[in-house]
Amino acid sequence: MTNTSFDSKAFRSALGTFTTGVTIITATAADGTKVGMTANSFNSVSLDPPLVLWSLAKTANSLPVFTEAKHWNVHVLSVEQEPLSGRFASRGEDKFAGLDLDDGLTEAPLLPNCTARFQCRTAFMHDGGDHIIFIGEVLGFDQTDLPPLVFQSGQYALTARKPREEVRLAKSEPPPECSYTEDLLGYLLGRAHFQMVNRLQTLLDQQQLEQAQFFILSVLCIRDRLTLAGINEYIAYTGYTVDQADMEVLIRGGHVVIEEGRFRLTADGRDASLHQIAQAKAIEEELVEALGPGDAMALKLLLKRLIERTDPGLPDLWSVSA
Amino acid sequence: MTNTSFDSKAFRSALGTFTTGVTIITATAADGTKVGMTANSFNSVSLDPPLVLWSLAKTANSLPVFTEAKHWNVHVLSVEQEPLSGRFASRGEDKFAGLDLDDGLTEAPLLPNCTARFQCRTAFMHDGGDHIIFIGEVLGFDQTDLPPLVFQSGQYALTARKPREEVRLAKSEPPPECSYTEDLLGYLLGRAHFQMVNRLQTLLDQQQLEQAQFFILSVLCIRDRLTLAGINEYIAYTGYTVDQADMEVLIRGGHVVIEEGRFRLTADGRDASLHQIAQAKAIEEELVEALGPGDAMALKLLLKRLIERTDPGLPDLWSVSA
Repeated sequence: MTNTSFDSKAFRSALGTFTTGVTIITATAADGTKVGMTANSFNSVSLDPPLVLWSLAKTANSLPVFTEAKHWNVHVLSVEQEPLSGRFASRGEDKFAGLDLDDGLTEAPLLPNCTARFQCRTAFMHDGGDHIIFIGEVLGFDQTDLPPLVFQSGQYALTARKPREEVRLAKSEPPPECSYTEDLLGYLLGRAHFQMVNRLQTLLDQQQLEQAQFFILSVLCIRDRLTLAGINEYIAYTGYTVDQADMEVLIRGGHVVIEEGRFRLTADGRDASLHQIAQAKAIEEELVEALGPGDAMALKLLLKRLIERTDPGLPDLWSVSA
Repeated sequence: MTNTSFDSKAFRSALGTFTTGVTIITATAADGTKVGMTANSFNSVSLDPPLVLWSLAKTANSLPVFTEAKHWNVHVLSVEQEPLSGRFASRGEDKFAGLDLDDGLTEAPLLPNCTARFQCRTAFMHDGGDHIIFIGEVLGFDQTDLPPLVFQSGQYALTARKPREEVRLAKSEPPPECSYTEDLLGYLLGRAHFQMVNRLQTLLDQQQLEQAQFFILSVLCIRDRLTLAGINEYIAYTGYTVDQADMEVLIRGGHVVIEEGRFRLTADGRDASLHQIAQAKAIEEELVEALGPGDAMALKLLLKRLIERTDPGLPDLWSVSA
């Protein structure tokens, strides 16, 4: 239903559905004071001449500085700069405390490690209701490969890029009576996981080990001197339950010794596990490169949120007190 | 390095790192002709009065209509409207052909099924280099729950929202010598998958079945009359290899019969499998709700891209010709 009453909360909520990047815009006052603020009202305007715009609330403390300054810099923030976004969004005292600055084309402060930066000269200012619209001519710009931070509906976000063609695993449509499709999350998680573990298999074959042994060694590599029950507690999440026979394989292979009912890695066992982890990391690096660093971050974030939601209460593998 | 030469490709690339939503902006000419174009230069300007802005290239065919029209509508597109974005981005003839329109406050065309819409009256127009900046007073707006479409660096994208606090599964940091951390993609995929399958376990316990039997029934439910080797070919991705003993469990339970060396589901077996799929879908619905529909879409998209990258060449389960 069309809302014409302009309840400010509802209007902000509707505007917030338009996704944006996050920028910090900086300037230097005549007395040398540096000002900066987080803004998502940035946008490009013109390629030739090169123009960009953003809007600043008329109530902003920094308004006099920006209206008098001839120059300002726009910093498109990277994912890693989320804390900086928070710092420049608040009314803190010296937002620049402890920050290293790069040398810029003008007197405006230039922050490092951004996804992109635009160094501008004020071209026009226009009245925009409770904001002033600043239009700047871009004097210089640069860009890095750092994945950009995103803002949507009042929350920070990462992006997952969509290929031009829909990604379909099966070449053919499932038959209409089939309710089990490739879009089931459980299927996708299982297949993604097993395909990843299967890429470890060549190494495991060389080591004459099965996946169960891979899980055991991984656990013992982090948390040594466990009983069989202790090991199973940590690998319960894998669906595997290991027994004495699985441990015997590792003992015969010289990977593990048993002392007073507790299993301990040998130097060879630790070595085998470290090789497996190195291999897992090499596979991971290849995949992060294939997906892109921002998309890989988004995937990990989503998996962690899913794991939190489905966690049956696993013991904390990395906890020193467990 | 700061670029001051304004190579148009490099400048566009740097501007493109600023993530945006995708909008279609529409107007009606004096002669009744409807115009519309895809734009990502939209942004909010002011809450009181309610103002928004966007820019239109001076070379656009629709420029005369927009400069003469008193009203225009901004549609923040949902993920499902990606084809519409493509249609309104091209110089087609009748972009509105076959589209149902909603009744709006003004004569400007109002498209349905968007994430948000803003019905505007032109307040100001400003020169912006090779573009005209349109500033509109918002007369009415509405919003749905549909996840918005996103644009970044020349590609469509979905977003994965970041919670305010970093998501950490373990309460404690791993010891410094430990190179196996919760950030390994293989660990996250495995844990997410097994926690999901484990939530099926209550049903499987009632059915007196193990996970291996769950995989077998799933395969036979889609593709009946397989040999043991055929079944294993389809479930190889799970890491399981099933043997005659696994099949015997299903035969004794009345789920499967064997005919000329090929396994076939009984009515009871199909029923058991359909219950499992229904349960898997119920779990999935709960998780999609917990993550949010847009984030769930992003997770599935990323998993599919990962699966494509790691696919060892699995047979196509849904293919009729396999």
